[in-house]
Amino acid sequence: MTTYTAINLIARPTGGPIGPELFEIVEKELPSIGKGQFLVKQNHMSLDPAMFGWMSPDTESYIPPVALGDVMRSSGIGEVVESNHEGFQVGDRVMGLMGWTQYYLSDGAGLNKVAAPLPDEAILSVFALPGLTATQGLYSIGKPKSGETLVVSGAAGSVGSIVGQLAKADGLTVIGIVGSDEKADWIINELGFDGAVNYKTDNLAEKLAALTPNGIDVYFENTGGAIQHHVYERMNAHGRIAVCGMIADYSKEVPDLAPSWINIIKKRLTIQGFTMPDHFGEIPALLEKLTPYVMQGKIKHRAHVLEGLESAITGLNLFFTGKNKGKLIVKL
Amino acid sequence: MTTYTAINLIARPTGGPIGPELFEIVEKELPSIGKGQFLVKQNHMSLDPAMFGWMSPDTESYIPPVALGDVMRSSGIGEVVESNHEGFQVGDRVMGLMGWTQYYLSDGAGLNKVAAPLPDEAILSVFALPGLTATQGLYSIGKPKSGETLVVSGAAGSVGSIVGQLAKADGLTVIGIVGSDEKADWIINELGFDGAVNYKTDNLAEKLAALTPNGIDVYFENTGGAIQHHVYERMNAHGRIAVCGMIADYSKEVPDLAPSWINIIKKRLTIQGFTMPDHFGEIPALLEKLTPYVMQGKIKHRAHVLEGLESAITGLNLFFTGKNKGKLIVKL
Repeated sequence: MTTYTAINLIARPTGGPIGPELFEIVEKELPSIGKGQFLVKQNHMSLDPAMFGWMSPDTESYIPPVALGDVMRSSGIGEVVESNHEGFQVGDRVMGLMGWTQYYLSDGAGLNKVAAPLPDEAILSVFALPGLTATQGLYSIGKPKSGETLVVSGAAGSVGSIVGQLAKADGLTVIGIVGSDEKADWIINELGFDGAVNYKTDNLAEKLAALTPNGIDVYFENTGGAIQHHVYERMNAHGRIAVCGMIADYSKEVPDLAPSWINIIKKRLTIQGFTMPDHFGEIPALLEKLTPYVMQGKIKHRAHVLEGLESAITGLNLFFTGKNKGKLIVKL
Repeated sequence: MTTYTAINLIARPTGGPIGPELFEIVEKELPSIGKGQFLVKQNHMSLDPAMFGWMSPDTESYIPPVALGDVMRSSGIGEVVESNHEGFQVGDRVMGLMGWTQYYLSDGAGLNKVAAPLPDEAILSVFALPGLTATQGLYSIGKPKSGETLVVSGAAGSVGSIVGQLAKADGLTVIGIVGSDEKADWIINELGFDGAVNYKTDNLAEKLAALTPNGIDVYFENTGGAIQHHVYERMNAHGRIAVCGMIADYSKEVPDLAPSWINIIKKRLTIQGFTMPDHFGEIPALLEKLTPYVMQGKIKHRAHVLEGLESAITGLNLFFTGKNKGKLIVKL
């Protein structure tokens, strides 16, 4: 008899760091596969800010929360190790929302085969949620035009780094908001951003003004926090703001307040929130848009790999501290 | 020699009530018309909240401010009384931005003939800025669908009353925010709104919740102020907010803060500001959309008529106090 490990969510976060008391680590017996089923051994799981929404009890959120006692939700890549399903053969590489588990029993629903000859880390960093999210938000809301100025927060993060590189490739001036000088260095010298603001150490208003002399046309908001106000004040007429993440405000009881809406009229701004689950039907079109940039070598990425299933628990806190360097991935 | 009266803007408002110190009342000699020119005797002028923007020095605004010493800007309707212009005959009824003046010398630029056999008050209340603004914001941003719930602030005002009636005609549940019981009574019993919240006397959260049991799909924001927060909290997923006016916040040194943007993501809201000068090219299409509703008797209006050119000065303050009953019009 062989067992495997999974992690269930057993309590909901109340703000502040994510602790082990929210989870239960369970040993389970490997299931035998039924008719039309197959078993996946998961090799890499993705950690994403969206998980805070999935853990929260808020029923208004865009995807139902994980039920208490269920395996924590996450996307990942694995290999089919046993199969009674004619569409999936042993050895096939598959991707989907398998959750925090070493093995996953499936009838095929929600899993897709991975065809691209790229490592798991590259797939999860670019062609999974981060790349799709960046592409959706940038093009459907941001509507970037060559010569314009784009600011992206969380610029060294998995979504932000792709947003900035797509915009650079499209001929925009791109400024990234980051939380460390190492990240500032990376986005400028490795990714080709035109400038960076370190929101922890720079004078936000001054640095932003110096880097965006022509104002800001597109703001891709991944973080929330105090920087939002400063970017907002520098938006140009007809500016577009894609609101993708507000991690800095999720962990606060009283979130930062956004500025008055007077600017929304004066500058005829469009502010639009989006989440990928609304756009899963558009994934083929998004991949078609994204793939040429990747194939032309215009999208670099870096993965921050944690080792072992249980590292996911404390790994989530890296989103709050900002200490991750690149896309957070758990290697099983 | 005949003279006429005009009013120049000579200082900019600094917040608070509009006083006579901002204006200079001048007597001028009636000009003689040159080649290709004609003279209009203005009969009715429109007072609009947009005027506060026109008076302000803010160069980021959507239309250049009125220069100090120039005639105060406003739209109005008048009659051609002398003409050397082959396109405009004596007796023609014309409309345009003639400003606070009894007579207006024109070469035709910016003036249009009024063909509709309706009184000046009706034209200025429905087919001028208010109706165009309501139509533009409601359909291009609000995207109303039968069965949805719309909330409009400034609901007894010139724009809000048309927004609500258009939405009712389209099969929505329509709730108006007003500042008096008399206005609440008018929008419900005369205009057919489904309900009203008196923002001065009602418990905003409770009344709004009772009137919008299915949440709010479209918010047409004409006023700003504390009600905004309560409406925002009740927005449904994929809700649309058209930001048209923020009068309650223009006169404050420190404007009300809007709530955090977390809801923008959770509910994938779209918040968009607009002003009519961006859409003057679309006026024919907007009139085409609006006219059938008017012809079918679905758009009622009421005009609040002030007497005499100088009444415009103190009349502007009615936007702050909310004591106007219907579209503010000055009869010359």
